[in-house]
Formats: sequence, structure tokens, C-alpha cells
Amino acid sequence: MNEDTIIRKLRRRASLIGDDCAVIQPPANEDLLFTTDFSIEGVHFRLESTPEEIGYRAVARSLSDIAAMGGKPLYCLISIALAPWTNESWIDGFYRGVHSMLRKTKTALAGGDISHANQFVCDVMVYGSVARGKALLRSGARPGDKIYVSGPLGGWSHKPVVVPRLDVGRKLIGKATACMDISDGLALDLHRLCVASCVAAELETVPLLKGANIEQALHDGEDYELLYTARPGVRVPGIPIGTITKGKPGALKYRGKALSPTGYDHTQQRSRPD
Amino acid sequence: MNEDTIIRKLRRRASLIGDDCAVIQPPANEDLLFTTDFSIEGVHFRLESTPEEIGYRAVARSLSDIAAMGGKPLYCLISIALAPWTNESWIDGFYRGVHSMLRKTKTALAGGDISHANQFVCDVMVYGSVARGKALLRSGARPGDKIYVSGPLGGWSHKPVVVPRLDVGRKLIGKATACMDISDGLALDLHRLCVASCVAAELETVPLLKGANIEQALHDGEDYELLYTARPGVRVPGIPIGTITKGKPGALKYRGKALSPTGYDHTQQRSRPD
Repeated sequence: MNEDTIIRKLRRRASLIGDDCAVIQPPANEDLLFTTDFSIEGVHFRLESTPEEIGYRAVARSLSDIAAMGGKPLYCLISIALAPWTNESWIDGFYRGVHSMLRKTKTALAGGDISHANQFVCDVMVYGSVARGKALLRSGARPGDKIYVSGPLGGWSHKPVVVPRLDVGRKLIGKATACMDISDGLALDLHRLCVASCVAAELETVPLLKGANIEQALHDGEDYELLYTARPGVRVPGIPIGTITKGKPGALKYRGKALSPTGYDHTQQRSRPD
Repeated sequence: MNEDTIIRKLRRRASLIGDDCAVIQPPANEDLLFTTDFSIEGVHFRLESTPEEIGYRAVARSLSDIAAMGGKPLYCLISIALAPWTNESWIDGFYRGVHSMLRKTKTALAGGDISHANQFVCDVMVYGSVARGKALLRSGARPGDKIYVSGPLGGWSHKPVVVPRLDVGRKLIGKATACMDISDGLALDLHRLCVASCVAAELETVPLLKGANIEQALHDGEDYELLYTARPGVRVPGIPIGTITKGKPGALKYRGKALSPTGYDHTQQRSRPD
């Protein structure tokens, strides 16, 4: 299986592929959104997962960033580096997972790159759009805002299926004051939102996934729920978990005690624990 | 050095970075171009190169695809996976190379992802634009067209500095019938252009880089010169190398003899030779 064979297979399902660049007409009166996320063997996934799950999740991770801005996904570029062990049936399974997520979210595969490495590496770039000037940013939270999450938390080990919250994100346009997705754990990501908004936060209740404990909900990554804030009295979907406060930017409290903003750091040379 | 430290450093030079997605206003009356290219340790570069060269070349590779469409680069996303050996000074050098190429071509760094792997992996996504409907494609070559290259060839070992041919690409708009960049060797890439255009090709003369031989010019990769066709009599920049002919799509001849469309295949588990 060589490069041109893989590309020929992809073109059967993705007619845009075939030139040096994808050529796309931009939507009128919208802002463009761009995001990119790695999925690396031993870091973001283990080979005990099926290739379908790995492909599905690789795309879901980038779509979650589009959801966090209140956007609509349009096109994606997928780059893969094959590992010494990858064979045709694994790659076919991987792309079945990719296409399944793309179909669900009406996102078109427009290109990518193919190479090889010691471990399987995938990078998914998604391009989407949002009404001009309406993107949900991390930086708009103000003291007094209520803090919400789009669903219960518990980290990667309790989250077998990632569903990018595109529907929730779009409903928050014009309502949420700040929004992001939880990829590295509630504590670390809420800290980032607070730093960007120059505010502090106090958490009261954190909804847990079945079987998860509060430590996992606070500090594990890969939840891919949305984390957002809204003025008190503004009705938004989701579960309220606390309040934005004045204070040192990024300082967090959980039930009155200081909460450390620790979570998953992608630069560290370790895998997620089993 | 953790993820937030690297991001803080990048934000000093790239104010767009900081949210889940980059938010960008699209240019009016233009088509958008997207491309993405890996730079992987041991595959696309060796550590004997300086980090500046590696960063510079990683960006140049994607810009060359924008040049091949006659486009103008606007923004890029750069994802890096740190290897166990990467330290702060190497990363700083890498980004010096990245920023040097970005400055030369007026391209803004808008985001990316950071992770880790067993070897250093970089993926550069560039977003650019071109006048609506005017992108140079691979598929427009017709029998009788003259074939050109933008400069002498010789493959990766004779090409210390990659200069994306953005200026040449833009001059070809409305003149070239087909265009692509030579990344995997003249023979393989001309074969691809001919397959896309349903034509054959006959090469007569191939300009050589100093010290390079004809085998390297035909079958090595990493030239990053443009390869393009134009109707006879149409004045274009560059060096004429042959003629498009009727025949089996993709069939090549060099000085009257059949030429095998072999070149660099990115899926094969081998590095470029030393």
C-alpha cells in the first residue's frame, strides 16, 4: 500500500482531494474558524482501541474546538504518519471511523498529508464558520457570571464515546459570555478561561459521569464537554457548577478551598495512566 | 518547559493564538486555499540540520503548495510533538526558523497543537487565497502545451535552501494550463500532473543544480520548484523542459525513451539516503 493507493481510496469518498491545496469558496458574512489537534499512539490513544474508535475520536477532538466557539464545521484536512505496524485493514478501519464522524457532522474531507513515523500520528485540521463577530471566546467572563458545563465529567477513562457539543455551542451564541471545551480537565481549563478573562472562579457542584470520582472530574482530560459562563438570569442549556468572582486571575476554589489548576499536560513524556 | 510556557512564548510574536480556534475574517471575492505538510525527524529531516533550518523548511514545504496554486499565504497553524530529546533552546531555534519564513512571506501564525512523541513531528497547515476561480490546478494540461520548471533540479541533497516560488506562481495565473510543485521528484510529480490532465509527456532537457546528476533531478524529492504547462506561444517565466502529448495518461518519455514515474514515497518505512 503506497501513498497514491491511499489517496485513490480516499478520493472515492472525498472528491475534493487531488491537488496541492484544497480550493474552497468561503461562506459570505461569516468569520472563519481554524483548529488542529493531534492524535498520537501511546499519548492520545492505545492500540487496544479499535481503529474505528481512534479515527472517530481523532476527528471529534477537533470538532469539539469548533463547538467551543459556537461554530459550524465545514471542511477538514487529515494528515497521517503510518507506523511500522499499520496495515491496510487498520487504515481502512481508521478511515471508517473518520468518515462516520464526518458524516454525522456534515464535514467534508478536503485533503491532508501522508508520511510515516515510529508510532501512528494523526493531525486533524478543521475549518468552520460562525456568524461574523459572534464567536464564543474564552475572554468574556465577568464577576457574577454563572459557570456551566454541558454534561457530567470524569475524564478519559469514563468517557468511551466523545460527542462534540456542536448543538450546545450554537445555542450559546449571543448568550454565553465565555466558552471553551474541556480537553485537559475542568480545573486546568477553567483556570485558562479565568486567566483569559482576568477573573477568578468558585466551584460548588461538579456533575460526575457514572463511576467517576471528583478527582477525575477535576483533573483528568478528554471530557470534551463545553465549559461556559453566562450573566445571572440568562437562560442557557447545561448544568450550573459555580460562579465567576473577582480575585487573582485564574485562582480557583472548590467548596471554599483553593483548587490547584492541574490537569493533562501534552508536552510531558508520559502516557495517560491505564 | 510545559505546554502553557510554550504557548506564552508563541503569543509574544503571534497575537492571534489563545482560544480554541483561530477566528479569521475571509478575504472578499477570493477562493480559500488549504494545505498541510508533515516534517518528521528521520523522514523529512535529520538532526544534523540546525533547528532554524528545520523550522524554516517545515513552513516552506507548505508554502510551496500555496505557490503551486498561484495563491497568497495568509495564516498558518503549526502543530508540534516534542521528542524526548527536545529542549528549550532547540524549540526556540525551531521557532526562529519558522518565524523567519513567516515574516518573509507575510504569513501570520494563528494557532496549532502541542504534544509529544518518540520523534519530533511537526505539521504545518497554511491557509491562503487566490482570485475566485483562478487557482492553478494539475488537471488543465493539453497536448501541445510546453512544460516548464521554475528552476534547476537535483533533489534534496543539492537543495540546501528551499524558497517557495510564490512570485512565480502568481505570475502564472491566467497563463499556465496546469501547475504543481515538485516535492517527490520530477518524474513522479509530472506523472501525477499528466494523470490528472489525462495526457502524456515527453521531456527533452532537464536543468540541473550544481553537482546534481540527471537521476537525482528526475527521481529525488524536495526540489520545491514549480512544474507547469502553458500553450505554445504563451510567455511564462521559467525553463522549458518538454512537451505534453496525447498518449496513455501519465506515460512519460525522456529523450525518446520510456521514463519510469518513480520518486519519493512518503508511506515507505525508510529515510532519505545520506
